[in-house]
Amino acid sequence: MAEPTMKKARVEYTHTREDFLKVYEVLRDELLNDECLSPANDSAQAKAAQEWFKEVNDYNVPGGKLNRGMAVYDVLSSIKGVEELTEEDIFKANALGWCIEWLQAFFLVADDIMDGSITRRGQPCWYKVPKVGMIACNDYILLDCCIYRILKKHFRSHSAYAQLVDLFHEVTFQTSHGQLLDLTTAPIGSVDLAKYTQDNYLRIVTYKTAYYSFYLPVACGMVLAGIQIQDDYLDCCGDPEVIGKIGTDIEDNKCSWLVCTALQVASDEQKEVIKAHYGRKEADSVAAIKALYGELGMEQRFRDYEAASYAKLDAIISEQTLLPKEVFSSLLAKIYKRKK
Amino acid sequence: MAEPTMKKARVEYTHTREDFLKVYEVLRDELLNDECLSPANDSAQAKAAQEWFKEVNDYNVPGGKLNRGMAVYDVLSSIKGVEELTEEDIFKANALGWCIEWLQAFFLVADDIMDGSITRRGQPCWYKVPKVGMIACNDYILLDCCIYRILKKHFRSHSAYAQLVDLFHEVTFQTSHGQLLDLTTAPIGSVDLAKYTQDNYLRIVTYKTAYYSFYLPVACGMVLAGIQIQDDYLDCCGDPEVIGKIGTDIEDNKCSWLVCTALQVASDEQKEVIKAHYGRKEADSVAAIKALYGELGMEQRFRDYEAASYAKLDAIISEQTLLPKEVFSSLLAKIYKRKK
Repeated sequence: MAEPTMKKARVEYTHTREDFLKVYEVLRDELLNDECLSPANDSAQAKAAQEWFKEVNDYNVPGGKLNRGMAVYDVLSSIKGVEELTEEDIFKANALGWCIEWLQAFFLVADDIMDGSITRRGQPCWYKVPKVGMIACNDYILLDCCIYRILKKHFRSHSAYAQLVDLFHEVTFQTSHGQLLDLTTAPIGSVDLAKYTQDNYLRIVTYKTAYYSFYLPVACGMVLAGIQIQDDYLDCCGDPEVIGKIGTDIEDNKCSWLVCTALQVASDEQKEVIKAHYGRKEADSVAAIKALYGELGMEQRFRDYEAASYAKLDAIISEQTLLPKEVFSSLLAKIYKRKK
Repeated sequence: MAEPTMKKARVEYTHTREDFLKVYEVLRDELLNDECLSPANDSAQAKAAQEWFKEVNDYNVPGGKLNRGMAVYDVLSSIKGVEELTEEDIFKANALGWCIEWLQAFFLVADDIMDGSITRRGQPCWYKVPKVGMIACNDYILLDCCIYRILKKHFRSHSAYAQLVDLFHEVTFQTSHGQLLDLTTAPIGSVDLAKYTQDNYLRIVTYKTAYYSFYLPVACGMVLAGIQIQDDYLDCCGDPEVIGKIGTDIEDNKCSWLVCTALQVASDEQKEVIKAHYGRKEADSVAAIKALYGELGMEQRFRDYEAASYAKLDAIISEQTLLPKEVFSSLLAKIYKRKK
């Protein structure tokens, strides 16, 4: 008699970072042996390419906090109930979660090139690694391709396969559009303070970050749980995600929350300082902007804004009935770094 | 009574470049108004982004010979017969053809950055346009996204939608893998003549060029005609596509057909010249390689090789019975620039 395919989830599954990383190893090894790449060919050339490909993945994909990737399981288990999930459900949720991490890796490698960044997650940006340089331009294409190889291998016979593929495409398009907004709103070298508005800022972060950080993990969980996704469902992006770091935004002339808010509260004299020093590489200009931020009390302004936006989101979550509130509260807690 | 949806193809449809370009205009306008991009938003920021997006497309997509894109209709009409095609069939074939041209545009923008090229199709490479630079790294992501927006808009309800999406993903992965082989087989600055073999060369061009140039248009035509594509159907890539231009291959240390063949026929003294001068930026080194190519009679060797490979392909085409021979002969004639 055939063994039943449905198994109860082992109660021991605690969804730790370690368990999630084990799934990465499985997916990464499958990719290295993908039939598209003729793995049976054992020429030196093919072996070298396989090693490079392994490094592209290992260097760039698993190194973050993994919040987005791990959230898919959280969403699914909130909707269906932990005890209802089979081992296969858990694996699939984590595989989708890794697709999101691969998507993020793809965008981070690209963004670092465009922003001229030096480090990422505590190590040199991939394009900064001496042997890499502009080869990174192809490497992030490969990272993007990995998403669809994983989807094809593990979801091809899933009833929602086309929907999942569409979902990742849409979010990629929205994220890339957000990057376009970010790069064209305030091009390096151009000084037009009129563009630093809250609306412009919100539009940038909604497209560039919110879709893949919030909508995508939740949508993935919903699809796995059998819920149909409507294209117009997105109500968690009215408030921007504030990263809380300055990085190279000042030098890069970015339309950041900080500069937009500073312009709203600055005196005419202080606006002149921004006009004269924002978006410039020179260290004394960067220092002038940072000093001005200090004068304007930007840190406290940010904390107040953070608290207010947390309260607003929490209220929205409590009111909605589409999904169990825990789906959102646990994500919210992680972002705002509070205990559940 | 409802109007019948099937219409006979107008006999006037002659599949010219002009007719094909009209389809580009339609698809491009749909993309500019894609719902993902909130077109109803008429802020200055959104308008500027839309203009940039329009230029990314217009500058990079329609400027080539369009052989690959136009081939989809040729393949479909060869299989089904011209008189059997409806207006919708013709439009869909051309829409798929434009997806291939969008795919090519995506790769060409990326490749030009990685190769440090100056011009493409008679104009500056997109990343060389002053306002663009590294923003091009995001622009080619957008170009890739366009493929899937077009597929979603025009093929979402087609029975082979998932197959078409998979096809474009696979070919993207193979092309990117080919670029990886190209960039890692002979890294700039490293002199290892042992890597310049015919096998390595063939592997590079098969993945980097042949899949999207030959397999993809034919596969698209077959899918539209209702034929299922097997993953292992590829028998037109045993012979490499020789582009017939040198460009920056010498400076970029490329594993090209020219250098591989030169090494096969060179004397020990001539090999030393290659070792000393290949893969270097200096004009006198480039000149030394070109002079050696002249000494070795590389142009005539190439013509002979071209004639031999044409004859081989022609024989294979005549023997196979999977598809009507015209499917391949017309493509072959275009590539080898002979009359049908």
